Amino acid sequence: MLQLPLSLDASSKTPLYEQLYRALVAQIRGGGLPAGSRLPGKRTLAGQLGVAVNTVDTAYQILTAEGYLQARPRSGFVVQETWDPAPPKAAGEAGEKAAAPVPRRWRFDLSTGGVDTALFPFRTWGRIQKELLYAAPELLGHGHPQGDENLRQAIAGYLAAYRGVDCQAEQIVVGAGTEYLLGLAAGLFRGAAAAVENPGYRRVRTILENNGLTCRCTPIDESGLDVAALARDGAALCCVTPSHHFPTGVTMPAARRGQLLRWAAEGPGRYIFEDDYDAEFRFDIRPLPSLQGMAGRSGPVVYLCTFSKSLAPSIRIACMVLPPELLERYRQVYGEYANTVSRFEQQTLCRFLEAGHFARHLSRMRLAYKNRMEALAAALQAEFPHALLQGRHTGLHLLLTLPQGPGEAEMVAAARREGANLTGLSAYYMEAAETCPENTVVLGYAALPDRDIPALAEALGRAWR
Amino acid sequence: MLQLPLSLDASSKTPLYEQLYRALVAQIRGGGLPAGSRLPGKRTLAGQLGVAVNTVDTAYQILTAEGYLQARPRSGFVVQETWDPAPPKAAGEAGEKAAAPVPRRWRFDLSTGGVDTALFPFRTWGRIQKELLYAAPELLGHGHPQGDENLRQAIAGYLAAYRGVDCQAEQIVVGAGTEYLLGLAAGLFRGAAAAVENPGYRRVRTILENNGLTCRCTPIDESGLDVAALARDGAALCCVTPSHHFPTGVTMPAARRGQLLRWAAEGPGRYIFEDDYDAEFRFDIRPLPSLQGMAGRSGPVVYLCTFSKSLAPSIRIACMVLPPELLERYRQVYGEYANTVSRFEQQTLCRFLEAGHFARHLSRMRLAYKNRMEALAAALQAEFPHALLQGRHTGLHLLLTLPQGPGEAEMVAAARREGANLTGLSAYYMEAAETCPENTVVLGYAALPDRDIPALAEALGRAWR
Repeated sequence: MLQLPLSLDASSKTPLYEQLYRALVAQIRGGGLPAGSRLPGKRTLAGQLGVAVNTVDTAYQILTAEGYLQARPRSGFVVQETWDPAPPKAAGEAGEKAAAPVPRRWRFDLSTGGVDTALFPFRTWGRIQKELLYAAPELLGHGHPQGDENLRQAIAGYLAAYRGVDCQAEQIVVGAGTEYLLGLAAGLFRGAAAAVENPGYRRVRTILENNGLTCRCTPIDESGLDVAALARDGAALCCVTPSHHFPTGVTMPAARRGQLLRWAAEGPGRYIFEDDYDAEFRFDIRPLPSLQGMAGRSGPVVYLCTFSKSLAPSIRIACMVLPPELLERYRQVYGEYANTVSRFEQQTLCRFLEAGHFARHLSRMRLAYKNRMEALAAALQAEFPHALLQGRHTGLHLLLTLPQGPGEAEMVAAARREGANLTGLSAYYMEAAETCPENTVVLGYAALPDRDIPALAEALGRAWR
Repeated sequence: MLQLPLSLDASSKTPLYEQLYRALVAQIRGGGLPAGSRLPGKRTLAGQLGVAVNTVDTAYQILTAEGYLQARPRSGFVVQETWDPAPPKAAGEAGEKAAAPVPRRWRFDLSTGGVDTALFPFRTWGRIQKELLYAAPELLGHGHPQGDENLRQAIAGYLAAYRGVDCQAEQIVVGAGTEYLLGLAAGLFRGAAAAVENPGYRRVRTILENNGLTCRCTPIDESGLDVAALARDGAALCCVTPSHHFPTGVTMPAARRGQLLRWAAEGPGRYIFEDDYDAEFRFDIRPLPSLQGMAGRSGPVVYLCTFSKSLAPSIRIACMVLPPELLERYRQVYGEYANTVSRFEQQTLCRFLEAGHFARHLSRMRLAYKNRMEALAAALQAEFPHALLQGRHTGLHLLLTLPQGPGEAEMVAAARREGANLTGLSAYYMEAAETCPENTVVLGYAALPDRDIPALAEALGRAWR
């Protein structure tokens, strides 16, 4: 049991548990706390530092949740090896860390999966949860397999108002994440061929293939998915991100949307899976209505969206809108499945939507992200006058191209040496990587604190010249 | 907008919202509130009845969640048609209700899926949730794909102590329900043949088939799954409920367990899926250790259990223990999938386990269920001296056989006429229903209030003689 050379600053704006957390991460990273060493008990350390036991408890919890520590029933908290980013070789300890890494803390988190959780409406969410927990014990019982009726009503209202989605509550399936829902939808088409966007989300392809579909990588042009290529592919399904193509940021114009809907109308059994993953964060104009809305409630579109991006990644609530004939198939195949979202969280979200909190929360977030995007774009443009920035009208990431850059691989490597975990555009190509624009990287800014923007621009300046 | 002839009794032990809920259900059932009629606004009704708006709100919410009402954005709460138990004909309103019924309220709920939610530890669970919500904003971020490390540690400790499961935390996958986890596990064996118990859980077969496996119905004898028949089947996988076969209640003896493990050892790539769905409710002796424990942490057993039965059906947390080589395959296939359980609920369960609340909660429930089972068995035996009762040593349901009974179908129909929704044993046969013991019904008592037991026995007495 070792002593910790630590001191916390009670006058700092940074909460004590956060200071403690950072100090411990620094020591673990720096080797001051090698893997296997035991941390002092919570009370001991709290006494040593003159802070509340809760403070230590919270810090230990975060470190444990992030995998820095392991809580052992009787022996307390033990330091773990830090993550090895190599792909899994085998099962076992190393396997675990490689295969299922907890996100490493970067100086600048530019991942596209991030969310600014500082914007999370704690008080309201917490109050509603508490009310429900004491007021509605019936919520402990079985709910509707597709999700509670009142939540689906509230979601239908929200989707109609904000995304131009045209559906009845009964067409909605609530589930624990879009990955889960996409898997269920894909399971209705086992053996079929599906077109996926290239470049695009690898995970979509993985999920489709895991559910027995074969995938055709279909190219993207300046209007989004190439419908002519899609038609040649002979796929029955087509997965698209029309509001904001991932990762290029292209928004599919009306004409192309029309072509895509015609493609679906021309073949029996053709469906479009519309992944509306971040369209609530559109900065220029009112969000474009969804493809689903264009097609109508009986059109050949399966609409998917998540609340995890607008609330918090750890809150697993997403929804899927099915056209009537698929809804019927869905119920024949999955009618016995219980819903995967806790009813307390379903009802918390329901009240949050019904009371208008969600709408207010979204506008707050939209503004915060817009300001951040503009500050980031300005700082990058100032640092790199010749850089080309794309994807500024919507979403939570930017594309940056350096015309005379040292090459994408070197850009990424140099940035990572500076502690910025951005990604090269080519990483999103599942095929034909040679067609990828050169010297282009993807910067997600959702999890990037505004105050870090100047330092990030400097760091990239050092990295790239 | 109709007036409601209602009066609530503030002096009663029954909460006001529950009284209101029951009164409204009675009116909806009785036709006093036909489908389509609009309920008074919450404030109006609260004023009329002289109760808090919250009281009305809670009652309306429950009715909505149960599908009696539908909340319409501007037009308030509208009475829905009550459920039609016929299979789905088409999509649309009727289709919805048929395909995805919200459990109808019976006078005696004898379903095997029920849980006595009155035993739910509200205060503790609520306190922990509140603490977490304010103390650990980091829980909003992405967690470990298999579930938070500290939760998996706590689960490993619990499974070792209570179920004799032998595993490391890294072998555990936490997910939103056993159905979801079974689907993932099945996805690793697409195209394989799996043996399922007959009689048994239809849902297990559905999930396996939905994930591309073919199922062989394998008979049960007085020691559980017939391993000789299994060997003849030529299946690679075998799904069993050894602690407490569903629904016959047979506990697989050690000798048969040994045969089953030998079967798995004899063929490469053979695995046993052990569904330990309710073994924490064993009344006679300490629960038998799991098959997984007999096989050891590297043995060919996938162990599945849920916390929804011991906490509440609406809390969707289950776990799966994978042997190392399957863990590796799991990570190759699903490594990119985010976990499906909200981290707040993960951490609530974690603290609940770590602080010993879960162990105390289980012993309270076990005692309550044991007393209920004994009272029920005594009441039934008194009513039917010649009846044979089976499955009394464990689980949450009983089998009742009437040697000179009028036949299973008539027993079920007559019981339902008396408001008791029990099930005939033959309903669990997917094949060879002719081998089903006659005059035998399955009574689940988890959701049956003790005070209703005498009335139930009387009602069945009326029904069956």
